[in-house]
Amino acid sequence: MTDPLPVLADSVRLDEDGVHILDRRRFPFAREWVHCRTVGEVADAISGMVTQSSGPYFAALGAMVLAARDAAGLPAAEARVRLETAAEQIIATRKTNNHLRKAVTCVLDAVDGASGDELVKAAEEGARHGDERYRARCRALAGHAAELLPGAGVVLTHCWADLYLVELVLAARRARKSLAFVCTETRPYLQGARLTAATLAEMDVDTTLITDGMGAAELAAGRIDALVTAADRVTMDGHVVNKIGTLGLAVAASAFDVPFHALVQAPDQATATGADVPIEYRDGAEVLTVLGQPTTSGRIRGRYPAFDVTPPRFVTTVVTDRGPFTPDRLGEYYAEGEPNQ
Amino acid sequence: MTDPLPVLADSVRLDEDGVHILDRRRFPFAREWVHCRTVGEVADAISGMVTQSSGPYFAALGAMVLAARDAAGLPAAEARVRLETAAEQIIATRKTNNHLRKAVTCVLDAVDGASGDELVKAAEEGARHGDERYRARCRALAGHAAELLPGAGVVLTHCWADLYLVELVLAARRARKSLAFVCTETRPYLQGARLTAATLAEMDVDTTLITDGMGAAELAAGRIDALVTAADRVTMDGHVVNKIGTLGLAVAASAFDVPFHALVQAPDQATATGADVPIEYRDGAEVLTVLGQPTTSGRIRGRYPAFDVTPPRFVTTVVTDRGPFTPDRLGEYYAEGEPNQ
Repeated sequence: MTDPLPVLADSVRLDEDGVHILDRRRFPFAREWVHCRTVGEVADAISGMVTQSSGPYFAALGAMVLAARDAAGLPAAEARVRLETAAEQIIATRKTNNHLRKAVTCVLDAVDGASGDELVKAAEEGARHGDERYRARCRALAGHAAELLPGAGVVLTHCWADLYLVELVLAARRARKSLAFVCTETRPYLQGARLTAATLAEMDVDTTLITDGMGAAELAAGRIDALVTAADRVTMDGHVVNKIGTLGLAVAASAFDVPFHALVQAPDQATATGADVPIEYRDGAEVLTVLGQPTTSGRIRGRYPAFDVTPPRFVTTVVTDRGPFTPDRLGEYYAEGEPNQ
Repeated sequence: MTDPLPVLADSVRLDEDGVHILDRRRFPFAREWVHCRTVGEVADAISGMVTQSSGPYFAALGAMVLAARDAAGLPAAEARVRLETAAEQIIATRKTNNHLRKAVTCVLDAVDGASGDELVKAAEEGARHGDERYRARCRALAGHAAELLPGAGVVLTHCWADLYLVELVLAARRARKSLAFVCTETRPYLQGARLTAATLAEMDVDTTLITDGMGAAELAAGRIDALVTAADRVTMDGHVVNKIGTLGLAVAASAFDVPFHALVQAPDQATATGADVPIEYRDGAEVLTVLGQPTTSGRIRGRYPAFDVTPPRFVTTVVTDRGPFTPDRLGEYYAEGEPNQ
């Protein structure tokens, strides 16, 4: 018997009618699905934050299938151009994480030079393979991460590590480890409160919510055994790019001798160092409201860098699907070649 | 000509009818005054966060005048007991900051053994003296703080430094310094967004609002010239006790070589070190909502330590009304004796 997966672990669904994406902006207060019939609608859903973290990977797979269906009547060469255009449109929605590039590449590779029904079938097969492969890599890295944690302890996490977190909870359970979690709420979208804390509670995990400013005090008080977050990208020299707020927690963890384990499927061979990562600045006005209500008066500007970059000196371990690495030895990940996507 | 003071710089008023306290929980969205007719109502207003930061000091002065009026018909000894009971009731409302003790002591010293009309007059005189003295010390420390800042630069601040901040802006202006401010919103009550950012904008200061998780990235990016916060208390060995979130910013400032200046009228002679400071834990449920709306689902506990303690290794300067001190030399503050309260 296996535990049922929480709602957010299966929150992008492809059917004959399009891609259905659970609206993470409203979860857990409402369970509403956004129905996307076209690549453009999927792109809008991703850039509009209907889904985030691992969600865009699955949405991108689905979008590529929609593109293939749309191009099924075209000659192979034109269909290929149509799919490549769709891929570019999806990649352009968010620039810091490279899940999107991997997802569209997975389908593009699968369809090769096909057309007609073959094209659609190949795209669906590619998307299914990408889905399974992604989940398998999450399970693998979560297993390695669970090994780094104590038999009983408290993990501080930030934002929403999505399938990495869900699989970490399941892996720790299989290993008979008893983990409690402290979650930062992660303003401005409150993903930590709405997605992480809610999903951990759904999975019957002992869960404490704190505000984003409380992490350092928790770390200083000796109440935390490890800081564990996902990474949107890890550079080859060990810079961890993740949701804004990760840097502050990592610096505090380092100051108070708590290990920081960053979870990522693989370091990014295309990115040598932190300065090479484009940071997405979202509309500063998003900082000036919370759950739709204004937080301050007028004549104030907000600033919203969506990610920050944690230098390797504050990172203990980068945990990948091929095991844990110290940030100075990430090159070894590729000693056995490229991973299968 | 002097600049008019912002609304929050005069937000506790004593009149014949009682103590009127501007409701900081609702500011700047509404300007509502809570009318307290008794010491108990003032105590409830303080513990209920109607006012905070410097506000409770002024509210405590007013409460002691109400106690004196109430005790005016009693013999001197009984009146004294009544005032001392009121003082204990006020001090008990919040335990981390010692403004409350100073305020009630100021009035108790002034009334001495008086009774009847003399008692009321002495209490009112004591409260007036306390008010003036407090404001003068804020002006003095703000002048010293302004000297530490560059001619043009950006200050990161956290929570609401109240009169320290208002006087710092005025002192910098007198010194022809051009300061812009970046404010953290300061969850769960959003004092940084609602009080600090709103008041800086009211004072025509260039103001940017960020979430509590963004401070480290701002510091790492080299956009900040100094971190400046108030302190609720500074221990004799240089631990800075202030609103939860200060520690994380101070650790990050230290990691990225940005100075941290903590503002306090005087270090606390009664408190040798950080471990001696009682930290107020407020109801964890307050973390689970924002502006009255829930932020997550059920079965999740919140934790809300209202303050954190920053060790001296992360503090550059403690700025007092007698000038700036490095945290290891705070004993020198008292070389010229006790300050006049």
